[in-house]
Amino acid sequence: MSIVGAMSFVSSRAQVEPFRVMQILGRALARDDAILLCVGQPASPAPAPVITGAHTYLDTHTLGYTATLGIPELREAIADWHSRTYNVRTEAKNVVVTTGSSGGFVALFLAALEHGDSIAMTRPGYPAYRNALKALGANVVDVVCGADTRFQPTVDKLEKLNPTPRAVIVTSPDNPTGTIIDPEELARIAKWCEENECLLISDEIYHGITYGRQCVTAHQFSPNAAVVGSLSKYFSMTGWRLGWLIVPDHLVEPLENLEANLALCPPAISQYAALHAFGQDARAELEGHVAKYAAARDVLLRELPSLGLGRFAPPDGGFYLWVDVSHLTENSELWCQHILDTTGVALAPGTDFDPVDGKKFVRISFCVEPEQVSEAVRRLKKVMVDTTT
Amino acid sequence: MSIVGAMSFVSSRAQVEPFRVMQILGRALARDDAILLCVGQPASPAPAPVITGAHTYLDTHTLGYTATLGIPELREAIADWHSRTYNVRTEAKNVVVTTGSSGGFVALFLAALEHGDSIAMTRPGYPAYRNALKALGANVVDVVCGADTRFQPTVDKLEKLNPTPRAVIVTSPDNPTGTIIDPEELARIAKWCEENECLLISDEIYHGITYGRQCVTAHQFSPNAAVVGSLSKYFSMTGWRLGWLIVPDHLVEPLENLEANLALCPPAISQYAALHAFGQDARAELEGHVAKYAAARDVLLRELPSLGLGRFAPPDGGFYLWVDVSHLTENSELWCQHILDTTGVALAPGTDFDPVDGKKFVRISFCVEPEQVSEAVRRLKKVMVDTTT
Repeated sequence: MSIVGAMSFVSSRAQVEPFRVMQILGRALARDDAILLCVGQPASPAPAPVITGAHTYLDTHTLGYTATLGIPELREAIADWHSRTYNVRTEAKNVVVTTGSSGGFVALFLAALEHGDSIAMTRPGYPAYRNALKALGANVVDVVCGADTRFQPTVDKLEKLNPTPRAVIVTSPDNPTGTIIDPEELARIAKWCEENECLLISDEIYHGITYGRQCVTAHQFSPNAAVVGSLSKYFSMTGWRLGWLIVPDHLVEPLENLEANLALCPPAISQYAALHAFGQDARAELEGHVAKYAAARDVLLRELPSLGLGRFAPPDGGFYLWVDVSHLTENSELWCQHILDTTGVALAPGTDFDPVDGKKFVRISFCVEPEQVSEAVRRLKKVMVDTTT
Repeated sequence: MSIVGAMSFVSSRAQVEPFRVMQILGRALARDDAILLCVGQPASPAPAPVITGAHTYLDTHTLGYTATLGIPELREAIADWHSRTYNVRTEAKNVVVTTGSSGGFVALFLAALEHGDSIAMTRPGYPAYRNALKALGANVVDVVCGADTRFQPTVDKLEKLNPTPRAVIVTSPDNPTGTIIDPEELARIAKWCEENECLLISDEIYHGITYGRQCVTAHQFSPNAAVVGSLSKYFSMTGWRLGWLIVPDHLVEPLENLEANLALCPPAISQYAALHAFGQDARAELEGHVAKYAAARDVLLRELPSLGLGRFAPPDGGFYLWVDVSHLTENSELWCQHILDTTGVALAPGTDFDPVDGKKFVRISFCVEPEQVSEAVRRLKKVMVDTTT
């Protein structure tokens, strides 16, 4: 067996921190009364016209490889949707259809960064950025963000970085905090990026899910920004694995060449079906989902303060609340386990999103039925009252 | 516009050679009489039970994210199929479902190689290995292979490499040559890899498409090899983007962690539908495709010598012939263009597969209707006769 021992090499690039939320999820799924407020997946299926479309294409198309950059009709549909939504002029030639936004990030990181280059991301922030970037040899620079800047980056914060990073990621609505960046600040960041030869990567995958505050696309301020979009969140098509990049001209061919070697093409059936995600019927259905998220959010905004969970980031969009629990625990991982064990309510510990201060926070997802959120609140009330008495 | 100029940075990692075959394909698609013997995509759809399964799952499942490693039923089905086909004991826990074999290679390369590590591949060989590896920072070492070793690597060739590579890729049936490695040589390579702490990556994506000569899996000789499989070729599901890895225990969790950050999960509908690819009805349909490839291959084997194209690698499996055209041209790229322009027959220039000697070769794909191959031969005959007279 010594040979087997010697053969057990694993690259340091693969030594990624496992997600704590997955441990909570595993524990939760072992119960039959769990309420999953820990993961960011809409419970709803794809819009009905998308499913009808998929049936049709299954019967009429061979579903072979598509063009690497995506089928032209879908690139057109995305460009058209983006242009109409933000009153910008987005052309299909700048749209790259990707296998989820995940696939888009990988290709974009490779195209935009040399090995060892610095890229700035917020802390707290989406952990897959950090882990994918490390695997791909980037130098991740934290931009620590708190309530004073709505948990969003600012030019002031970017100015302080040394060296100036090659790229910066702005996520709005943000994961895990749900905050939307001020349009004026995004404009300032876009300008700063241009002046500093820094690529602005604008993660807009939660666009469409907002509660009053407006989202702007980075392309309103800079044609040189790379915009990342997804069919997973607003369009409720997670398992279909489709996303997009909208990039300046000079990145299109490098991305095509990379994707031809890393992925060949996004899933064909998903691409054809997604053509039906932008029509009026689909949009009506999707707005219904957003109304549900809004109702679930209302329950939380109304009830959390009475549970002693009233300190959270401005809940502008997406379907997460980033809640400060530092007065209740020194370790949000243990606290989430305790809450799950005593109530069946699964929350995400903040440590996935912030390796330094995450023990003070939890992320609450509310992309579930509003009744489930009400029931979760009822259960939490019991324990929280027990705790304080 | 100076700002735009300064902003046009592209990483050296994205500076991948474009595929010449795509240029030929583009030129061919502009004609209405083209016969495409240039690309490796079965013209057939997925097996009927897969399509029926897809319809069912569309109507009954939400199709959200699946487990990162793939749905357990599919991991079981692949393990079972692999065990039965090769009389080995493959367990579901060692199967990683991936987004095409492309997605599997990317994750495997990252898990098995540190930045700068050496990996050996054959020349000629599949260009996406080379390009993906370069993008991911590996040091690609060519193992030059010719007719004397059936265009396959040998321990003798590996012994001569200095330093010993961290990994070696064996492709059998091979792309572009179609050769199948001798089982004895694969056994020797597997042993050498174990003794030299080198990961054997066995690309078995063309398994099932053979013409008499038998394929063996690397797992018959080493539990430490990483086997790569695909639903794209034999199973005729290219656009569904599904493949798999079968890896030793120590690589499973690193691959799961990597994939959670790079891909989240393979497409859900494809996974559920693929459960129906391994049954008897599907297999009967797929064997029909192989019979067609065999008929098309027969036409080529019979006719090519009379066209002066009789020097090719042993046509053991897959659906390619690797043909020596050095007596006809000094530049197979120009020659392929000439053949396309004068006959409408699109062939792949060898330069995609062999950056050094590829100008002497072309790759002929025959995963089309046998009649198309006959028609291609008729057209070629005209020009080749014209050329020699």
